Amino acid sequence: MFESAELDHAIDQATYDAAVPALREALLQAEFELQRKASFPVLILINGIEGAGKGETIKMLSEWMDPRLIRVESFDMQTDEELARPPEWRYWRRLPPKGRIGIFFGNWYSQMLNARVQNRINTARMDQAAQAAERLERMLCDEGALLFKFWFHLSKKKMKTRLELLKNDPLRSWQVSPFEWQQSKVYDKFVHYGMRVVRRTSRDYAPWYVIEGSDANYRNLTVGRILLEGLQAALKADTRPKVQPHVAPLVSSLDNICLLNSLDMTQSLEKDLYKIELATEQARLARLVSHKRMRRHSLVMVFEGNDAAGKGGAIRRVTEALDPRLYQVVQVAAPTEEERAQPYLWRFWRHIPPRGKLTIFDRSWYGRVLVERVEGFCSQADWLRAYGEISDFEESLTTHNVVLVKFWLAIDRDVQEQRFKEREEIGYKRFKITEEDWRNREKWDEYMDAVGDMVDRTSSEVAPWTLVEANDKKFARVKVLRTINDALEAAFAKHKD
Amino acid sequence: MFESAELDHAIDQATYDAAVPALREALLQAEFELQRKASFPVLILINGIEGAGKGETIKMLSEWMDPRLIRVESFDMQTDEELARPPEWRYWRRLPPKGRIGIFFGNWYSQMLNARVQNRINTARMDQAAQAAERLERMLCDEGALLFKFWFHLSKKKMKTRLELLKNDPLRSWQVSPFEWQQSKVYDKFVHYGMRVVRRTSRDYAPWYVIEGSDANYRNLTVGRILLEGLQAALKADTRPKVQPHVAPLVSSLDNICLLNSLDMTQSLEKDLYKIELATEQARLARLVSHKRMRRHSLVMVFEGNDAAGKGGAIRRVTEALDPRLYQVVQVAAPTEEERAQPYLWRFWRHIPPRGKLTIFDRSWYGRVLVERVEGFCSQADWLRAYGEISDFEESLTTHNVVLVKFWLAIDRDVQEQRFKEREEIGYKRFKITEEDWRNREKWDEYMDAVGDMVDRTSSEVAPWTLVEANDKKFARVKVLRTINDALEAAFAKHKD
Repeated sequence: MFESAELDHAIDQATYDAAVPALREALLQAEFELQRKASFPVLILINGIEGAGKGETIKMLSEWMDPRLIRVESFDMQTDEELARPPEWRYWRRLPPKGRIGIFFGNWYSQMLNARVQNRINTARMDQAAQAAERLERMLCDEGALLFKFWFHLSKKKMKTRLELLKNDPLRSWQVSPFEWQQSKVYDKFVHYGMRVVRRTSRDYAPWYVIEGSDANYRNLTVGRILLEGLQAALKADTRPKVQPHVAPLVSSLDNICLLNSLDMTQSLEKDLYKIELATEQARLARLVSHKRMRRHSLVMVFEGNDAAGKGGAIRRVTEALDPRLYQVVQVAAPTEEERAQPYLWRFWRHIPPRGKLTIFDRSWYGRVLVERVEGFCSQADWLRAYGEISDFEESLTTHNVVLVKFWLAIDRDVQEQRFKEREEIGYKRFKITEEDWRNREKWDEYMDAVGDMVDRTSSEVAPWTLVEANDKKFARVKVLRTINDALEAAFAKHKD
Repeated sequence: MFESAELDHAIDQATYDAAVPALREALLQAEFELQRKASFPVLILINGIEGAGKGETIKMLSEWMDPRLIRVESFDMQTDEELARPPEWRYWRRLPPKGRIGIFFGNWYSQMLNARVQNRINTARMDQAAQAAERLERMLCDEGALLFKFWFHLSKKKMKTRLELLKNDPLRSWQVSPFEWQQSKVYDKFVHYGMRVVRRTSRDYAPWYVIEGSDANYRNLTVGRILLEGLQAALKADTRPKVQPHVAPLVSSLDNICLLNSLDMTQSLEKDLYKIELATEQARLARLVSHKRMRRHSLVMVFEGNDAAGKGGAIRRVTEALDPRLYQVVQVAAPTEEERAQPYLWRFWRHIPPRGKLTIFDRSWYGRVLVERVEGFCSQADWLRAYGEISDFEESLTTHNVVLVKFWLAIDRDVQEQRFKEREEIGYKRFKITEEDWRNREKWDEYMDAVGDMVDRTSSEVAPWTLVEANDKKFARVKVLRTINDALEAAFAKHKD
């Protein structure tokens, strides 16, 4: 895998000088075309041996390309903000939007390899990290991204020669960082695990390019050419053919028995009892979120439900118990321009709270398999793919101490009609009802199928759905609060200090 | 995920009797269409809780479908033959060909779940097994297979009721196997890990269908309908759109320095020395393969190389040292009809030797990225995908004690011309040269690019390539033998008794 990159690759200066101008011009042209079309982002991962020219290559690219369209992201020490969230968060927040190029230096591969070389994790754990990387990359590519992965390599001998040369040159010895010296000692381990990771994550949609790093001319021309050919091919392909899942669509229950219509929708709570229970659960929530164990966790609450099921009211009963500095309510409506330029889950990743904090999603990433599915806003391939992607996403959250509760607030069809009419009649409620609500109501059955599939496919041991019988708002609110409290208590009990 | 399958699903007898005839007829029709087109195979995986109707469903399907086109494969205890090979081998050998339906009962999921529930493996190991399953399934689907995964579920209560009923019924108590009783005790663990695996392996191309198992009518109709709709959709789609890798094709080395042209092709061996070294290495090989540690390993040798590079001669020097009962030489030519009806790697899996034995592949699975790539026998998407698939395949071999050595026998272009001419002139060699050899020679550069990419992408720590300088046949033969011997010795040293 790395053998070719231990040969003495070199390109003489005259050949190099002759080739560069045309290459730079073509690269710039491709870059502008990329910006004009703005149909996909480009992500460049820079990895490999210390001292093999990673930094120089990045400098070269910044010089050759239009700096307004290319952005270098360095990931070394995690910031406090990043440390407080699942590890993927730092990458998501800096993904390049469509039409732009992002260079990730010190990315997920550097992290898993350094951790393995320093024996902070074992090989099985490194393999798990590589699998997670593979899933992330496949998702990005499925969403349209063009991904380049460069591995810069040096033979052990060249590596040593290079470090010696630098050390003895008073003008350049500052370039030899202690880290590089350390790398020289761990060279063998780094190459061994590097090869394993490169092998396991080289896939047709995102292969690794292994580049010999000793000769700058060779390195620059090779990287430039690979980028150019890849960009041109992708720009020409324009709309990539989508994978058509080779399977039957979902089949709805034959006997019409499903979770939603097996709920006991008559459940209700008498007013006085409601007041007591509400106060009790709110007090319990306030206590829990100020518990010292909350410092280790964050809490994400997802509210989905029928129109007029009372999501807003339920959310208010939750927030009433909370210090406003602790939480954020995210109203999910049509995506912004910035959000449309990113993979689907990006707009949700950006709102993941740090440890100790809470985010309430009023509608969520489940829009993909609900409204986008029913209204045809995305292709069938996209929403079928989404169940798996959402499941990966939620596993990332919950394995990193995010407590996740997901509510579906269910009401009967006639209760909805009654509430719609009420909203039209009562002045201060009129803003809550539109023509669209009535139109959605026409598609009641299709929405119910979508909800059923959603719950069946995304309710799991790590992120269960809670179905809330919401014909009676009081009953629903107390059930919501109690579920949140139970989830927090369970999480605290599991991770005792 | 399993909640819907804990509801009381049931379909009354009259409804059932009314629905079945039309369903059976449609299923049979779809089945004949599948056979007629013979464009893809169908694989049905049956998993879930013990006692939830897995066996009954299989019986029903065998009854409903044409038994000539459907085949049930049960995997319980591994046979001696299977135990002597990597665990995937047993599944590969029983894959249904295109146009047929295979039902896998007790498949890879049963194995990983039982191993986990019985604490023979930990969760990380189970996750690795699930990842391997995911890769296998993706490969099968990329190759065209239509995959159905059914999980039959029962709530704990129903499970217990069912077992009690059976026990107290003298006519049926024999149905309650000790295994089922044990399952009842481990129910919680089984469901817990089952959910994890189902969640992590439910993907758009191969989702899980969770079926409540207590009511036979409901179960049969649901399974029948899912199969019917899936089959019909796949038959209609006919040619599935292929995934277009969203990346640049490979870029050949800019400075024309590559592994192949950096070999020292002048290396040779003087005749007398050759005789001594050949005899020494052959004797060493004979000793090694009869060593008791060989009982733990098998040996797979891959021979690729330029036309007339001397593969045949090198192979003969290896087999001269071997007991003919120990080895098999597989000449890889055009695939047979049976092989064309299977995924690409199937024809190689069938020849994987059991422990203690050897297989020599005269040309191999690398045909996909060599001749098929250059001659356009498969799409670019197919051969780009193949690097990753081959890497997975070889990792399966080497992690299960298969010693794998891969040779590329390289000769110079003028040496090839000389040998071609010699073959034409010498009577007993004339059968070895055809018009096609001369035609392939025209594409020398394209083949060299393909070889370079192949070595770069598939030479790794688990399965390195050995490039053999073969202008001098004597030198090449000794290098081949020595490499094999070194690999065996290294493997024996690593796995000491």
